[in-house]
Amino acid sequence: MLGTHDITIVLLDLGILLGLSRFLGEVARRYRQPMVVGEIAAGILLGPTVLGTLAPELQQILFPIRANTLIALEGLTTIAVVLLLLVAGIEINLSSLWKQGRTALLVSTLGILFPFLLGFAASHTWPHFLGFDGGTDILTFSLFFGTALSISALPVIAKTLMDMNLLKSDMGILVIASAAFNDLIGWIIFSVVLSLIGAGAVYGRNPQQTVILTIIFTVFTLTVLRWAFHKILPWLEKKTVWPGGILGFVFAFTMIGAAATQWLGVHAVFGAFIVGTAIGDSKHLTERTKDVITQFAMNIFAPLFFAFIGLRINFAANFNFPLIIIVFLLACTGKILGCSLGARWGGIAGKESLAIGFGMNARGAMEIILGLLALEFGVIHEQLFVALVIMAIGTTMLSGPVMEWLIREKKPLKLMHLIKPAGFVESLSYKNRSDVIMELAYRAADETGLDSAMIYKAVWDREQIMGTALGAGIAVPHARLLEITAPVVVVGRSEEGVDFNAIDGAPAKLIVFILTPTRDQGAQLQILADVARVFSHPEARNEAFKAQNYDSFIDALKTVPDKET
Amino acid sequence: MLGTHDITIVLLDLGILLGLSRFLGEVARRYRQPMVVGEIAAGILLGPTVLGTLAPELQQILFPIRANTLIALEGLTTIAVVLLLLVAGIEINLSSLWKQGRTALLVSTLGILFPFLLGFAASHTWPHFLGFDGGTDILTFSLFFGTALSISALPVIAKTLMDMNLLKSDMGILVIASAAFNDLIGWIIFSVVLSLIGAGAVYGRNPQQTVILTIIFTVFTLTVLRWAFHKILPWLEKKTVWPGGILGFVFAFTMIGAAATQWLGVHAVFGAFIVGTAIGDSKHLTERTKDVITQFAMNIFAPLFFAFIGLRINFAANFNFPLIIIVFLLACTGKILGCSLGARWGGIAGKESLAIGFGMNARGAMEIILGLLALEFGVIHEQLFVALVIMAIGTTMLSGPVMEWLIREKKPLKLMHLIKPAGFVESLSYKNRSDVIMELAYRAADETGLDSAMIYKAVWDREQIMGTALGAGIAVPHARLLEITAPVVVVGRSEEGVDFNAIDGAPAKLIVFILTPTRDQGAQLQILADVARVFSHPEARNEAFKAQNYDSFIDALKTVPDKET
Repeated sequence: MLGTHDITIVLLDLGILLGLSRFLGEVARRYRQPMVVGEIAAGILLGPTVLGTLAPELQQILFPIRANTLIALEGLTTIAVVLLLLVAGIEINLSSLWKQGRTALLVSTLGILFPFLLGFAASHTWPHFLGFDGGTDILTFSLFFGTALSISALPVIAKTLMDMNLLKSDMGILVIASAAFNDLIGWIIFSVVLSLIGAGAVYGRNPQQTVILTIIFTVFTLTVLRWAFHKILPWLEKKTVWPGGILGFVFAFTMIGAAATQWLGVHAVFGAFIVGTAIGDSKHLTERTKDVITQFAMNIFAPLFFAFIGLRINFAANFNFPLIIIVFLLACTGKILGCSLGARWGGIAGKESLAIGFGMNARGAMEIILGLLALEFGVIHEQLFVALVIMAIGTTMLSGPVMEWLIREKKPLKLMHLIKPAGFVESLSYKNRSDVIMELAYRAADETGLDSAMIYKAVWDREQIMGTALGAGIAVPHARLLEITAPVVVVGRSEEGVDFNAIDGAPAKLIVFILTPTRDQGAQLQILADVARVFSHPEARNEAFKAQNYDSFIDALKTVPDKET
Repeated sequence: MLGTHDITIVLLDLGILLGLSRFLGEVARRYRQPMVVGEIAAGILLGPTVLGTLAPELQQILFPIRANTLIALEGLTTIAVVLLLLVAGIEINLSSLWKQGRTALLVSTLGILFPFLLGFAASHTWPHFLGFDGGTDILTFSLFFGTALSISALPVIAKTLMDMNLLKSDMGILVIASAAFNDLIGWIIFSVVLSLIGAGAVYGRNPQQTVILTIIFTVFTLTVLRWAFHKILPWLEKKTVWPGGILGFVFAFTMIGAAATQWLGVHAVFGAFIVGTAIGDSKHLTERTKDVITQFAMNIFAPLFFAFIGLRINFAANFNFPLIIIVFLLACTGKILGCSLGARWGGIAGKESLAIGFGMNARGAMEIILGLLALEFGVIHEQLFVALVIMAIGTTMLSGPVMEWLIREKKPLKLMHLIKPAGFVESLSYKNRSDVIMELAYRAADETGLDSAMIYKAVWDREQIMGTALGAGIAVPHARLLEITAPVVVVGRSEEGVDFNAIDGAPAKLIVFILTPTRDQGAQLQILADVARVFSHPEARNEAFKAQNYDSFIDALKTVPDKET
């Protein structure tokens, strides 16, 4: 039973942790840094590293190592990490993964293989220098070390691409698909590592049994349950209170899946991740519902979890500078080299392939969770954990700016200069997504002299892989075509709006239809970025929504300053 | 530390509890019953009452009374109840309370006084029959019993009024304001009862100290902190990630406030309630943000909390039929009599005053929380707790249907028949809420021959008390006027929409401006209900949004069947 004082302390701790971690998270965001930096910093400030050194008595009153309050907080952080992995799993879209084909497979396979082999070889050769302390055998340690270097972090990568207005581009999709595949393989390898440690021994299972049962669980969830989720989702969306019904259902299944893998001996997070993958794959899971699940997990539980990490580990006492540098260099070398080579072999030009490497290099929250589990199971010690956390944050911070620097052009293409009077449809005749794309393809066929069915098919196939709604009433269906030599942009306006499955649920009132030459990767990136930039201004957006003809549409675009800093 | 098996069980329990309680909650909703009925039923099925009787071993494996898992679940339900009281507090709008003036004060004061005195007298006279078992002294028991009968449940009352399309009517506002005042006073009395039990003894405080400190906390939170929240909210809405920033801030303050009152000796829920009241009072807290907070608390935490109650108490073994009947009758008699008399004295006609009494009679979740705390502090025993839960559910189920029966007319007024061609403004000139109301007041002045400024003032004053957006692009500014003898309705259409602070954030594209005679309470109720009914049909709504003239607007209304079942 929680006593009166236990409840006081649990509530006070939650209030302080949540308040400070959100606050520092927002400060980090302000300076364009990942929020997780601020969230961990909150824990470091309140934990043994700072408060525990400056005012040990106060620290002990606030965060006592008393059994009951700690257990209650631990229960919460367990739920938090389970929800984080659920969200990571939901972001993985298996169906669109296969459609990306060879290039994505190359990027992700080499992006795992290179860092894994590098990490495995290095830690097997110099185990003690890299932090092996005899908690397990060297093989397990090296396997973990390799996995830790090769894991990726889909949610943070998606966030970086979104901030750069690149998420909907072909390059964005390639990176997302590769990272998804990377994560999936990475967590499967990690679950094997966990079973080798013998985490299933509590339930009398040996590693072999754990591996076999885990494979059965994974296959069953990704086939039978995936199909069942797909069937039941539309019913839930329609018949239950939104979003409560779906949230309750998704969370209940996640918890049961998590409990199942914990019982099999590979930790709860794996089950949550696999259930998330199975759920996220359904086309019936709308972007809006995905967003609610993500918000729920990320706003309250993620800050608590990361703050809790800073609270438990003394970052100052476990700061080993040489180890940090080596871990960081190994991680970057392996990942960037592997992914860039994969992209290059997949046919992507020089600078862009390097940008893909840096994009995939971000480790974010996944690395930290992986490290924490390894720490709890005694595979690594605290110094290596601190090095992994710093590596995770460092690679995440590096990712966006370097990509930006690699792919931004001096004189980027502007939406305004690409639309011709004949390319503006002031009032679309059709009202659903595929019809409107057909209508615009027809108009684009006039402009290019190409066959409209061919254009329609290219754009619609692309739309199927990942929706192109930007939210706030804008959508950007697009494709790259071998047959054209310069970009073609057609804009359609819809008074009522067309459902493009936007994250904010708003129907698209302005559909910007973009065709670019297959060879010129940069053109698409630039145009998409410009569309996102221009229409992020509410005034331009609203004027454009009302534009009855070409001239007033161009006037609307002119309200946006040409260069922003 | 939570062990491997503890984590398995905690996750499994959460999954099962959440899944079953959401499922049964949805089933209850399907049959137009409060969801809390289904949620508690889930706990009863999984707890000692059913599963514990049918399969005691399985029940012990799933829900063991092992210290660690129980503590983790307890931590979660503590947070759940704190969040429930936060939401209850947020619904209370102090500023609009005062504006409701004498009638609301009469309804709420008599609505507390009657059941309280009835309960106090009855339990003081026949303490043992009503479940007194010597856990405390008779005075404390009787004080609690009186409070338990007089508490109200704002959230569930608001929900009932919304389902009946009455929330935005004058009667709806009166009931909401009265219930808010009722809750506030009820919880303050209850906090005094808790301090009398000596809940503050853990911290070496006697009851007097607890009372004085609690008053200081309450006054400070409702003045200084309320002002500070009001100042900081716009900054949070603008500068932080929505809704994460605000959620984090609100939750952090709630937890700290809850910890503070727990430490003072009046239980955490009181602090959460008062902090909620202080936050909810700010005009800067948009309906949309309120909705996110409510969703967060109600979708996951509320089902867990109510299921947990069924899990802990054996409802079959503690089912005392005579006690249940007496508690139910005392509660209904006191509350309905008190509120109806108050409404009658406040100048409200016969049937409507009785409807107000039944509306206020719903006890919902608040009663259950109050009862649970009393049970934990040893003030009451389990039989009385079960009687209170059943009374809470019974009064809630009764409330809607009886109100419906009392105020529905045989031939209700229809929106369609009330709008004249001159009363349709096909395109409003103004774009913000007060300007548009002025524009429509001007049009209504033409129709009624009254002064437009007078009409404007009446409607705008009403709008200030509680916004009239119905969501989905509809708003219904309205007022009752002494000077007219028949209802007057004017409709304005806005292409871009006007911000009426709707819960879904959608701007109002159709503004239905309703004036009714002061004496005829029913007219307003009927017209508002009809507007809500008609525009709940997406087709009618969309046609009406597009109507360029009076005839096509009326055609849009005609698409809705006249009578629905």
